This record gives sequence, structure tokens and C-alpha cells, in this order.
Amino acid sequence: MCELLAMSANVPTDIVFSFTGLVQRGGVTGPHVDGWGITFYEGKGSRTFKDAIQSSQSHVAKLIQSYPIKSEVVVSHIRQANRGCVSLENTHPFTRELWGRYWTYAHNGQLSDYQQKFVVSRYQPVGDTDSELAFCWILEQVVMKFGETEPGDLMAVYRFIAKLAEEIRELGIFNMILSDGDHLMNFCSNNLCYITRKAPFGKAKLIDTDVVIDFDKETTPNDVVTVIATRPLTDNEEWHILKPGEWKLFRQGCLLLEG
Amino acid sequence: MCELLAMSANVPTDIVFSFTGLVQRGGVTGPHVDGWGITFYEGKGSRTFKDAIQSSQSHVAKLIQSYPIKSEVVVSHIRQANRGCVSLENTHPFTRELWGRYWTYAHNGQLSDYQQKFVVSRYQPVGDTDSELAFCWILEQVVMKFGETEPGDLMAVYRFIAKLAEEIRELGIFNMILSDGDHLMNFCSNNLCYITRKAPFGKAKLIDTDVVIDFDKETTPNDVVTVIATRPLTDNEEWHILKPGEWKLFRQGCLLLEG
Repeated sequence: MCELLAMSANVPTDIVFSFTGLVQRGGVTGPHVDGWGITFYEGKGSRTFKDAIQSSQSHVAKLIQSYPIKSEVVVSHIRQANRGCVSLENTHPFTRELWGRYWTYAHNGQLSDYQQKFVVSRYQPVGDTDSELAFCWILEQVVMKFGETEPGDLMAVYRFIAKLAEEIRELGIFNMILSDGDHLMNFCSNNLCYITRKAPFGKAKLIDTDVVIDFDKETTPNDVVTVIATRPLTDNEEWHILKPGEWKLFRQGCLLLEG
Repeated sequence: MCELLAMSANVPTDIVFSFTGLVQRGGVTGPHVDGWGITFYEGKGSRTFKDAIQSSQSHVAKLIQSYPIKSEVVVSHIRQANRGCVSLENTHPFTRELWGRYWTYAHNGQLSDYQQKFVVSRYQPVGDTDSELAFCWILEQVVMKFGETEPGDLMAVYRFIAKLAEEIRELGIFNMILSDGDHLMNFCSNNLCYITRKAPFGKAKLIDTDVVIDFDKETTPNDVVTVIATRPLTDNEEWHILKPGEWKLFRQGCLLLEG
């Protein structure tokens, strides 16, 4: 299995604190040693840092912890391989362009007997994971339903994607993070939680390493920041645990749609 | 205008030496201060490091110079903006997936009156540069001609792309680097050169900063490494200067096709 981390915020915010906790699960407090990746959106642009080695040993992960990149949407993943070998092409998050937006996706879980369902041609996987193939299939279904021009109502698109995710959940475990750079969606199969931090801000203490942050000193009163993770990253705050089949859509830190 | 750098090698090779020269042109010996990017292929996978700030000041560029990533294909670009504002989404290289491969592209030059020609729908630009739009148009034309399944003969695809590049050259300056992760193509409009290094290896001295390398100590006798750049990066070696309209296709450091 793997660990997911994502963020949606209404001001460019760095994710160094949460990422520092996540990285520990890549070889220190967790067994996820088969690569890691993190995508930062900055405006419509995005950049992804990846390594096919464990995050706790990665030079690139050290850069991310020491160089705070401010972003409104972040998607991150650390991997413990099940389907597909350990390689860069199998390392999440995966990105594809649709409607002039970069869509970024990461998956926690494992699927079975999926080859027959996931027939793709417009979007094809580069690696050989069930995860990337499922992502390609989702985008292909979206294009088949909505066409090559972005519809006025992206909410209809996300409702459709939630239905697809529900279909995929029948094939195994499918905890998913998906973003178009503006919206951030999560879909829960069995392990997904989130927290929305806003004023009054307090202190937070990581579970996986001995780090405490006082968000009151790092934020302004108008900041709204939602963090999503497979398991809570802090032990002195209340995380919302999602139920199987539940999903949430966030924009600028705020809940926009759910099902 | 901008500066291009690319590499094709028959063994995973780091590009630290050449990149160190290129980075100087991003604010020290050259005026290209509007961002930079570099894509490394490792197997079928790829990762791109980018910044919308000048390379000579970038933390991420410092990482690339201190952490040798070994790769068989590299595409890099430093930007002096003409079309499109300074932002991450306008920073080269650009990547799209086709036929289960990541295609990576960078452009030096400027085009005019291109909007009518570059009609796209399957691949859409995220930013607002002429460069990214031209890339989307090339891939769209390739799909229209060859379909959604990779043809057995990729050489026919590259010959077709060379024809498209020749059409684009009529709209202005179009020096291009393109790779599918296995092959590396360059197309020259007015500024492009390359060098193929193989045994017996010698010393090379950068033009832009006081660095000398002895490739004999860094390589094995079977290594073949081709480096492409807008302008020569070393002053004690003989670079091949391409003529307007000329193009070359390399694989594993060796010339495969030209026109």
C-alpha cells in the first residue's frame, strides 16, 4: 500500500510541515520505500518532484523540506509497490493534460481483474501500474462523455468522476486524490482523512517525527488550508475520517461538493 | 530568445558539466532570466525540474548541479520571455503523453501569425506561449496521420515531424528539441549545434565559467554521448553547426536519421 498527502489552500502555502511527517513513512516510521513524488501547482503551471528511491533517503525530498515552495494545490504520494516494478515511470503522482489543464492523480490501494474494464487509447499508461491505467481510463471516460472542450460546469465532471471511482472501488481498494490545479478531489475506499485549518490557528504536532508548528505564527487570519492524508499526520488535532465510498471536492481550502 | 541543451547517450550519463555552463547563461553570461527547466528520462519514466526564476539564482538548479542524475536522454531550456508572461506554465520543457510515451519538447525562437495555423483540440496548451501551442499542434497532426496506436516505424513519424517543423519555420524562428524518451530530435532554424563524444575522450573546457572536465576519467571506452546546444558550450572542441532547415535524430548517442 501507499500513503497519500494533498493540500488545497486559499493562499499560496508551503507544505513542508506535513511533507516532513509523510517522508518519515518512507523508510523510517513506515514501509513505503519504493519511491515518492510531489506535485505543486503554481497558477496553471505545475511541477512534480519524484524519486524511485525511499523518501527518507532522497536528496530531492531533502530539497523539498528545506526549500518551501508556496502553492495552492499539492498532491503527494509515497509508494510501497504492489502492482508494477519499482521505477520512475511507476512513481505517483501521474499527470495528463485535458482541456488546457494539467490533471494530477495519485492512488492508494490495489485493484484486481481490471484489464478488461480499463480499455484505453487516447490516454495510455507509460508504466505498468493498475493506478496509472485507472487514471487514464477515468480521463478517457471524461472525454467520451464531455468532449474535447471544457464544459461550463466542472461540478458535473466531478460528479461523473465520483461515479467512475465508485465503479473502480468494486475492483479492490481505491483511495484517490485528483486535481485539475484549481479543484482538489478525494475519494475514499478505506483510508482517507482530512483537516481544514483556519483561524483561530493553534499548534500542531507531527505523529511521525518530533516536530511542532505554531500555525498562528505562520498564517494570516483569512487563511484556509485543507490537508488530506491516508492517516492523520498530527496527534493533537481532530481529523475527519471519510467513510468507504465518500468523496469531497475542495477549492481554495473550502469544501465545495461532496457525496 | 532562449537557450537549448539536450543529450542522448548509450549509457546513463549525468549532464552536470554541460548544465553548469548553460546555467551561467541564465543571468550571468546571458540574459535568459525568465525561468529554466530540465527533463531527465530514466527508462520510460521522466522527471522535470523547473523554476520560473533565473537559473543562476535557483535552489533547484543548484540541486541539479550537485546531485548527478544519470540519464540516457535529457532536454533542457533556459528562457528569455518574448511570447507569454513569466510563469511556471510558460516554462519549458513541455511534456505530453502519446502512445504510452512521454514526449518532451523545448523551443528557441519566436513565431508570428500562428493562431490560424495552430488549431488544436486533443492537445491544448496550458500556458500562452507560441512554443507550447506549436508542440500541441505537432502532436495533434501526428495523431491525425498515424492514429492512436504507435506505428511500427517511428522513423516515418520523425520524417513527418520534420516536415511540420519546416512548415512552422515559415512563421519565424523555430529551433526545436523533441524526444520520446528513446529518440532525440533536433530541428534547426538558425541556432543549433551538437557534438558527439566517444573514445578516445579528452578534456573539455566550458566557455561560460571556469570549469574543465577530463572525460577520459569519467567514461568507459564504449560510451557514446551526444550533446546538443543552441551555441557551443566548450571552446576547445569542434561542434557541428546545423544549417537552417537541417535536422538530426539520435538514439543512444548515435546519429540515426537526418534531413
